[in-house]
Amino acid sequence: QAFSLAVIPGDGIGPEVVAEGVKVLKAATANEDATFELTEYKLGAEHWLATGETLPEDTLDKLRGHDAILFGAVGAAPGDTRIPSGIIEREMLLKLRFSLDHFVNLRPSKLFPGVPSPLANPGEVDFVVVREGTEGPYVGNGGALRVGTRHEIATEVSVNTAHGVERVVRDAFRRASARRKKLTLVHKHNVLVHAGHLWRRQVEAVGREFPEVAVDYLHVDAATIFMVTDPARFDVIVTDNLFGDIITDLAAAITGGIGLAASGNINMDRTAPSMFEPVHGSAPDIAGQQKADPTAAILSVALLLEHLGLDAAAARVQDAVEKDIAGRGTEPRTTSDIGDAIASL
Amino acid sequence: QAFSLAVIPGDGIGPEVVAEGVKVLKAATANEDATFELTEYKLGAEHWLATGETLPEDTLDKLRGHDAILFGAVGAAPGDTRIPSGIIEREMLLKLRFSLDHFVNLRPSKLFPGVPSPLANPGEVDFVVVREGTEGPYVGNGGALRVGTRHEIATEVSVNTAHGVERVVRDAFRRASARRKKLTLVHKHNVLVHAGHLWRRQVEAVGREFPEVAVDYLHVDAATIFMVTDPARFDVIVTDNLFGDIITDLAAAITGGIGLAASGNINMDRTAPSMFEPVHGSAPDIAGQQKADPTAAILSVALLLEHLGLDAAAARVQDAVEKDIAGRGTEPRTTSDIGDAIASL
Ligand SMILES: CC(C)[C@H](C(=O)O)[C@@H](O)C(=O)O
Ligand SMILES: CC(C)[C@H](C(=O)O)[C@@H](O)C(=O)O
Repeated sequence: QAFSLAVIPGDGIGPEVVAEGVKVLKAATANEDATFELTEYKLGAEHWLATGETLPEDTLDKLRGHDAILFGAVGAAPGDTRIPSGIIEREMLLKLRFSLDHFVNLRPSKLFPGVPSPLANPGEVDFVVVREGTEGPYVGNGGALRVGTRHEIATEVSVNTAHGVERVVRDAFRRASARRKKLTLVHKHNVLVHAGHLWRRQVEAVGREFPEVAVDYLHVDAATIFMVTDPARFDVIVTDNLFGDIITDLAAAITGGIGLAASGNINMDRTAPSMFEPVHGSAPDIAGQQKADPTAAILSVALLLEHLGLDAAAARVQDAVEKDIAGRGTEPRTTSDIGDAIASL
Repeated sequence: QAFSLAVIPGDGIGPEVVAEGVKVLKAATANEDATFELTEYKLGAEHWLATGETLPEDTLDKLRGHDAILFGAVGAAPGDTRIPSGIIEREMLLKLRFSLDHFVNLRPSKLFPGVPSPLANPGEVDFVVVREGTEGPYVGNGGALRVGTRHEIATEVSVNTAHGVERVVRDAFRRASARRKKLTLVHKHNVLVHAGHLWRRQVEAVGREFPEVAVDYLHVDAATIFMVTDPARFDVIVTDNLFGDIITDLAAAITGGIGLAASGNINMDRTAPSMFEPVHGSAPDIAGQQKADPTAAILSVALLLEHLGLDAAAARVQDAVEKDIAGRGTEPRTTSDIGDAIASL
């Protein structure tokens, strides 16, 4: 099989961690009947500064032609006032997720043996968050009136559809059915009544197709409590775009930090390529110094391989990462040291 | 001074913890020039089941006549399908917060010596969250179309005004100025552009009146990370209604649990009585068994006393709680044992 892969290294530490991801991808598939043709796309804050482009339509069209996308990180240095706040995030990263219909934002959290957690007694943490990726408060349906005056009003509209909720809920049930058979819906239906009830009804309806899966519900505030007091209770969590954003950062924190957190922006209908990216940002403060941990990017490559049906290669990457992590000492290693080590396991 | 206090014990463990709050209130003010006249109001899930009333207008009018409100907890047992989901929360608790213009939802988080935290190395945790209480996604401005069909659309609108944001931001700056002089705005302005920018501009503008306060910004997802990796960095956090709901439960969890978390729903303009309530819910599973920890209700009484200008009495309650907590052993105590102990310190 020949796969065509788009690579978007992005800004800051993005290029460094993506390079290690590609290294491991090649090592893991060396003995497979699979070849990868890589095409690099320059996008992100640096590219915007150089060209004024966020994500031109023809670039988006070209990206559609690939089998999958490997994404590093985007974003300018926090102090850089030349770039309007959030423009790269919205007009590039979110635009990709929305345009390519990445309705499953998959974020696994596993506390690997040997990884320190900020929790005193984390227990066995191994869950995945299925975050909706194309709706909710992320749709950009807000506005403002009388801006800058004492009478300013600013609104943000969360949009939720039966179509959008049902498909992501079904995906979450499938994953739960293939795992420990427990699904937790996280929402805030006692306050966000309309959206909340849509989510609850979809979970109830789709749940009838999966009688083997036990269903639980938590308000998002309570979910953050359990995340630090009893994270072992979670198997698959399904939630909306914003709640998912919040709880997956927390989930990453309790399982060793965003340096280890992988994610997939997945179009399960395969009408457009899916995109795999570490949860961390571009970390401009340590960029170009070989200080970044490429593990999250490498674990994202494992998700990518799995999505392409290369399950054996995906498992190989996952195993190599687990072995490398278990053996990590206090000796500092460069970004490429870590990539080399994982690629050779 | 004669104060008129409304007491809403509510459901589940509400009456038990409120009784201890009142006990401590009386002990702490025994030698003050202050008397309290208490009026009890029956409201909550049980009351709804008995009468079909959530919060009648005439009850609300009577409540307006008091100097402050002490609130226990409301909510039916999770399995109780007789009560439409969220109706008590919205039509009673949130209706009180909105009608009485409780724009400062004050939630202090302090890790008292002797209290176990789920964090391995919490450090010195002592911050307050100033959560906006009358706007944001809590306004009930959502709707749904084609409910129950494949074409259902459900929306939730977050409404934010210059008036609403400015006043809560000013309150947060005042508190920061009286504390360690650090304010962190928590929002998600890279996605929720319009609301986020309103919040940022208000923080910038009001901040000019408080040059002594250092201002920091965190996206809500990042804030949850720091909450578990470095909570000592926080002094005063100001944030919107929904983000505040989420991070204060997490904050409670890392500082010993919601059994210790107090809150005030405060109308700083004093155009209506403020309301003080433990962050925890009605815990129907342990109701009526003298198993509930009344500490959160008692600490809420300390906030109430402070709000009424009885600073010495407030400090006495706070000190007594800290002493009691420091001496807590493994011996189980009843709800009223704990109240007695704190009242006598
Ligand atoms: C950068 C930002 C727009 C993004 C999000 O909010 O989804 C990030 O926080 C994430 O979780 O991938
Ligand atoms: C019960 C619920 C409506 C309430 C809220 O969301 O504000 C609670 O979670 C709280 O934090 O006081």
